[in-house]
Amino acid sequence: MAKRDVVLGIDIGGTTSSFGFVERDGTCLAQTTLPTMPHEPATFLVERISRHAREAFTPYAASHQLQGIGIGAPNANYYTGTVCNPPNLDWEKSVPIVNLFRAQFDLPAAVTNDANAAALGEMKFGGAKAMRHFIAITLGTGLGSGIVVNGEILYGADGFAGELGHTVVEPEGRICGCGKRGCLEAYVSAPGLCRTVFALLAERKQESLLQHVSFHELTAKDVFAAATKGDIIATEAFAVTGRILGRKLADAVAHTSPEAFFFSGGLAAAGEILLEPARRSMEENLLQIYRGRIPLLLSGLQEVNSAVLGAGALIWSEMEH
Amino acid sequence: MAKRDVVLGIDIGGTTSSFGFVERDGTCLAQTTLPTMPHEPATFLVERISRHAREAFTPYAASHQLQGIGIGAPNANYYTGTVCNPPNLDWEKSVPIVNLFRAQFDLPAAVTNDANAAALGEMKFGGAKAMRHFIAITLGTGLGSGIVVNGEILYGADGFAGELGHTVVEPEGRICGCGKRGCLEAYVSAPGLCRTVFALLAERKQESLLQHVSFHELTAKDVFAAATKGDIIATEAFAVTGRILGRKLADAVAHTSPEAFFFSGGLAAAGEILLEPARRSMEENLLQIYRGRIPLLLSGLQEVNSAVLGAGALIWSEMEH
Repeated sequence: MAKRDVVLGIDIGGTTSSFGFVERDGTCLAQTTLPTMPHEPATFLVERISRHAREAFTPYAASHQLQGIGIGAPNANYYTGTVCNPPNLDWEKSVPIVNLFRAQFDLPAAVTNDANAAALGEMKFGGAKAMRHFIAITLGTGLGSGIVVNGEILYGADGFAGELGHTVVEPEGRICGCGKRGCLEAYVSAPGLCRTVFALLAERKQESLLQHVSFHELTAKDVFAAATKGDIIATEAFAVTGRILGRKLADAVAHTSPEAFFFSGGLAAAGEILLEPARRSMEENLLQIYRGRIPLLLSGLQEVNSAVLGAGALIWSEMEH
Repeated sequence: MAKRDVVLGIDIGGTTSSFGFVERDGTCLAQTTLPTMPHEPATFLVERISRHAREAFTPYAASHQLQGIGIGAPNANYYTGTVCNPPNLDWEKSVPIVNLFRAQFDLPAAVTNDANAAALGEMKFGGAKAMRHFIAITLGTGLGSGIVVNGEILYGADGFAGELGHTVVEPEGRICGCGKRGCLEAYVSAPGLCRTVFALLAERKQESLLQHVSFHELTAKDVFAAATKGDIIATEAFAVTGRILGRKLADAVAHTSPEAFFFSGGLAAAGEILLEPARRSMEENLLQIYRGRIPLLLSGLQEVNSAVLGAGALIWSEMEH
């Protein structure tokens, strides 16, 4: 019997990385998550992922043929196959990630920004199948974005277009992981939400469950849990975060006129407590022609990891071209 | 002798409108400027432009054949051929500008945003000939922008992409002509510069030539003249305006990764007094990968009106397709 073709889809995140074997129809096999260990060199992560992927593939080796490798990574450059100065990883300046994985598997490989991969997954397998213009936003350790224009990822001159996380919210604002100040990602991301909690605790005198958690220990999940219990600080932190997000979504609409936004990643799982204030603030800041017309949607691929499917979608479309 | 083909290029601005007859090589004949009279209905302007254009064409009628009409107008929609809620014109909600001009001349016609037209002119006849990714910005009564991605105008889902003038500088900031608050255009435009002068006069106690001019009378030219005489308020007004502009240019880079920005329009004529602080502020707000790599350039077509050439470029390329 002929073997079924699959590709290895890899999503490298600031905290965790995932991989899975993606069939042409979007079926994802053996999805596995492992810690990224951001302070290790890139080569260690590539070796670790490759070793786990080979092990995970063993049960499928008789029935499936591995054809290529798609990678989503922060600050990845599709044009050059490299990862450059990733803001949340202590890697060297420029990592030839495509060549590193090619050396491991001797198969075609391609890389794109993790958020571009999420956008490709959304377009190939998710809620954006019928759309030509949309923006996918990943909310986790950072804020990534993939902008689709005329059915294609917007890469721009350098391959780095679609970095909404590093647009400016406050010119003299919070220090960001990228070295700049006031970036959107420093406000709207899992750590950004936690920073907002501490800013609110500092400003206000309200009782809060979050007064008992250290800066080091606090996670976005704690904030969400507190908000669902009616904690005022936690609820306000989501409202502040949503308002900032909405304002920058309106800016993104003014740039590219998308049909919709799709959200994925850990913080997006908070859902309406974040998206409702974001929607309100976006609407307030949209030109009249756009009002009420641009939905904020959760990725339909959330459960199976849209970024792994997207990394798979990337190499599938590379091989089909 | 065979007649030479020309198209009528029309640029509709908030204060003045221009037209000219554009040959295939970018030669522009009989360029004419007339007041827009923004409080008149659109049909009056169309009739007035058409009448003047017919008169201006008379000396060329024996040697040239008019083949089409390209129009650049604020809030124009390329897809529908209409102008919708233009922020600086008291027109009805949706004006079928393409049909109105077709009715006058019985020739092919197309419309695009005035800033998109400037971008097309820059790409066909100006400094962006070799570029696939750039942004053209028109600085006058408003701030318009045309974003070019992969050698094509970015229109987005609705045809209204590339409206950087209505991105948000200050959420609760200045009232903008579009009805929103805090838009870039309310700070970075000829009237925005004047508003900044009055804000600075209100805040500071420094002597200024501009203390003797009323709000109604002050123009960007006055501010420029005062700045060249060393007036501190005028100089600071340009510095503030440039800083705000630079921050939003950095945001635009994060969205679309252009090779360069091109500036045209009355306020752009101020040159380095505006562009130098803009450049500095853009650089501060750019991701490291972009620093020192994205020039802010004055349009090489400034003198002959890049928008008229761009409107001509629009219909030339429509007819060639």
